[in-house]
Parts: sequence; C-alpha cells; structure tokens
Amino acid sequence: MTSSLFTGLSAFPLTPFSGERVDLPAFSRLVERLAAAGVDSIGALGSTGSYMYLSREERKQVASAAVAAAGDVPVFVGVGTLRTSWTLEATEDAQAAGAQAVLVAVPTYQALRDDEVFGLFEAVSAASSVPVIVYDNPGTTHVTYSEDLYAAITALPQVASVKIPPADPDPAAAEARIDRLRTVCAPGTAIGISGDAQGAAALTGGADLWYTAVGGTLPEPMLTITRAAQAGERDRALVLSAGLQPLWDLCARYGGSARVSAAIAEELGLVGPDCLPAPLKPLPDEARTAIRDFLAGV
Amino acid sequence: MTSSLFTGLSAFPLTPFSGERVDLPAFSRLVERLAAAGVDSIGALGSTGSYMYLSREERKQVASAAVAAAGDVPVFVGVGTLRTSWTLEATEDAQAAGAQAVLVAVPTYQALRDDEVFGLFEAVSAASSVPVIVYDNPGTTHVTYSEDLYAAITALPQVASVKIPPADPDPAAAEARIDRLRTVCAPGTAIGISGDAQGAAALTGGADLWYTAVGGTLPEPMLTITRAAQAGERDRALVLSAGLQPLWDLCARYGGSARVSAAIAEELGLVGPDCLPAPLKPLPDEARTAIRDFLAGV
Repeated sequence: MTSSLFTGLSAFPLTPFSGERVDLPAFSRLVERLAAAGVDSIGALGSTGSYMYLSREERKQVASAAVAAAGDVPVFVGVGTLRTSWTLEATEDAQAAGAQAVLVAVPTYQALRDDEVFGLFEAVSAASSVPVIVYDNPGTTHVTYSEDLYAAITALPQVASVKIPPADPDPAAAEARIDRLRTVCAPGTAIGISGDAQGAAALTGGADLWYTAVGGTLPEPMLTITRAAQAGERDRALVLSAGLQPLWDLCARYGGSARVSAAIAEELGLVGPDCLPAPLKPLPDEARTAIRDFLAGV
Repeated sequence: MTSSLFTGLSAFPLTPFSGERVDLPAFSRLVERLAAAGVDSIGALGSTGSYMYLSREERKQVASAAVAAAGDVPVFVGVGTLRTSWTLEATEDAQAAGAQAVLVAVPTYQALRDDEVFGLFEAVSAASSVPVIVYDNPGTTHVTYSEDLYAAITALPQVASVKIPPADPDPAAAEARIDRLRTVCAPGTAIGISGDAQGAAALTGGADLWYTAVGGTLPEPMLTITRAAQAGERDRALVLSAGLQPLWDLCARYGGSARVSAAIAEELGLVGPDCLPAPLKPLPDEARTAIRDFLAGV
C-alpha cells in the first residue's frame, strides 16, 4: 500500500486566512484545483499550510475540507505541535477526518535531544493507524536529524516515509544522498524531497516522491517535471527545473516557499489579499513585482 | 510606577507537570516560596515556566494561581504565542488574572522579518493596559533584535522593559553593553538581564533588574547577589556569582536554565518526578548526579 501512496507529486496547499479566520472556501478551491491537475497526493497542514498557526478546531476543519475537496486523491495531514499530547490529539483528529497518512514535524521551543525527538515519534507511531511521514524541516523546527535518529525512527511501526530537506542541488550529489539514505533508513522507507529547487535532481536521483510547496499553488510545472523524471527522462526533468530558476531564486530570497506561494496565490486571485496569519505579513512590493514578472513568463 | 516595578530580582518559577496535567498545587507552593524569600517580582509563564507548552486555559489557571500565591509581590505573566490573535487573548487573560506586567516573547515557526516582530509588539502595546516587557530570547525564539528594532519597540506605549539575553560574561563588557542599550532604547526603559551566569556582571554594570530562571527555584543565592549589587558591593557580587560557577556550568552543559531548574526542583522535592511536559524528558542520570553534587555543596 505505502509504495503506491508515497510516489510522484505530493502537493502542499496554503491554508489561506481572511483576517483572523481560515478561509475554508478558498482552501477547498485550492485543493480541488490540485486534484484536477492530477497530483498524486495532497499534503494539508504542512509548513506551507501554516499548521503551527492553527487551533485544534481549525486544523480539524481544514483536514475535513481537504479530504472532501480532494476526491480520490489521498490526503496527508500535518499533525506537528510543541507538545506530545497535542500531537496525539491532532493525529486522532486527522484520522477521523480521513487522512491517509499523518505528517509529523517536531517543532521546538526548548531544543530537544535525540531521545526526546524519538520519544515523540514512538508515541505517534503507537497511536496512529495510518502511515506516518517524518517531516524533517530544520529551517522551521530547528531539529537536526542524525543518521542514527533516522534509522531509529524509520524502524518504528507505521513510519513509512521521510520528507527530507533541500541539500546540494547538484544531481550527482542528490543521487549520492538518496543512496546513502537508503542504507540508513529502514527498508521500504519512501524518501521524499522537500525544497522545490532540488525536486528534479532528487527525483531523477532516485527519490520516491516530491513533497512540493510551490507546487501546491502552481502544480502544472512540477507535474511536468515529475512525469519526466518518472519516465526516465532525466535531462529533460533537469532542464525543465532549470527553466524555473527565477522561481527558485524568489523562494531563496523572500523567506521560503510558503511566503512565495502565498504571494503567487494572491497574484493569481486564488485567495484574498494578506492571506497569511499575523504576525506574518505579505511580501514587500519589490518581491511582488518580481513575482508578477515571473508569472507573466510562465 | 514602572521604575519601582522593574528592579532587583524577578524570579521565574517552573510550571511543573504531573503527567499530562499542570500541577497547580506544586506551582502555587513554588510561588509562595519565592514570595517568602523576598524576591522583588515573580515571572510566571516564562521559558522556565514552559509557557509555549500550555493551552490558553492552562495559562489562565497558572496566571491566577501565581497572583493568588504571590501575595504583595508583583507578578509578570508571559503571553507569547505564535499567532498575534492568540497573544492578544493571552494578554487579556493575564490582565484579568491580575498580572502587573506582560512578558512578550515572539516565538517563531516561519522566520519573521523585523516589521513583523514590530507589528506584533504594536498590537500588544495597543491592547495592553499594563506595562509590556520585551522578552528577547534568541535561543528559543530564533528572533534576533537589531538596535533599530529595540529602538522602535521600546518607543511604543506601555513597553517598559527589555529582558536581554546573556552575552559576554566579562563585567566590563556587560557594563559597556548596558551603556550602549541605554542609548538605543527609549528613555526610561528598564533593562533586565536574563542568563543567570551573567546576572551579577550585568547588575553591577548598571542593569535595572535580573530576570532569573534558576532563581525561580533557588532564590536565596540570587537574592544575596542582587542585594550586594544594589548596595554597590560590586566585587562581592561578582565573587558570590563566581562561587556558583558549577551551577552556571550545569546550565551551559545540560540544555539551559529551564531544564536544570526542573531537575533541581525535583531533587529538592518541590515537584514530582518528570515535571517537564512531553516531549521534554528529565535530564540524564549523569546530569542528575552533577546536580546532586552541586546541591550538597550549597
């Protein structure tokens, strides 16, 4: 089951806000749009989906809306919180909403030791009846996973995939990294790349899937790259990705994929203005101009 | 009013857990103990008080218990959250509970720009009818305050104090830093030192108060240092602090004051075992042995 679930393109939509409230109709439209584009799975409540800025009740509503709007496309739901008991509640809620997997980031306030990170996964693994995705996102969680920690966590029941952060964009380096992870992680662990600029290199280097943030707003170009990689058209996938370099540059320059995705969605009229939860503010004018220039050329 | 409120020793107690619940009776005893020791103020729900691991309802209970147990000693209450609207709710709750000031940290998931950090303080400043303390704690929040940001935030109405992170432990360097901050922050801003190892150097270097984490569990030695510094006995304050070097070393080695304070409170029987909220776990045995050795010599 897991081998077909964790493959291809997994697209992470925004959770748009309208003032202090989640704009559920706009969110549902984003999910419908991804399903219609033909993505392989949908990742609700990832970092791009602002999961850490939502209450338990808001997360439940978003998870249910995602499952309803996704149709036949499987939905993964982010359940990370600062406290183990809250993450277990979120896991229960996500399953009740129909999530086909839960995505477990370990955000931190006090820095955590490896045994504490492992303990959190041990608790979720025991409580979850759906597959668990390890969400390794050091830029926001400030957790660094050693190889030993990867090995221990992926050996837990239900842990089926790791969502790895961007690294060296060189295709040979990406391939070597995936090869190395195959020897570190438990057999059968699906390796998914995060960090959109490295998606093509990782997919053509042997990653099982691409957990894409910007592809949650612009699915078509990421799908084209994914299908090329899946067809063994390595050079074409890399050339297509290189053609999106202005987009990767925007993400690197303006605070990452989540903020750039929000600005793109606003520019495309998919969401209302100022769709990020305060204290986050929209990108400055210069970034908006650069994004408009990019969109005009897509 | 603020000049007398933000002075001397401000002690930050733990919020002890018993399993998944806050141990309110143990918390109240910690606060009563601080008031009886003669601290100048009590900081509930600081980092040592695990504020980021508590629900809104739990924070309300802790704030009310702190005010009830503190008697005549003023209570400051931490109101930081990831979302502006939640911080405004916590500010309202803290005031309703009787807080004499609110302590505003800006924890982050997505990294924030300076204008976003400022916007959060602008919102709290407008909503609060009690003084606001700027809680600059880069080790947990990953926010770095520039001098321009300090200047802008401290110029806001109600912003009365900054709680600065530890820096150079050299007394001359500490004094130079405080002098510099006096030129950066709005006139009258009370400068308080966090980072217990630097408390004596900062107080004798001109800081207005010491926001002490370990002093929330071991108030007496920090009070002796504080009173020496206030009496102008600079050398004595520094010698007393140097005598606590084993304690400062423990904090540096074992994940900071919050974890060490929890272990000390457990060793002293002030709280039950395993008093930190999961996923945080108790310190390992070697640290416990070192803490017992230290306590035997106090």
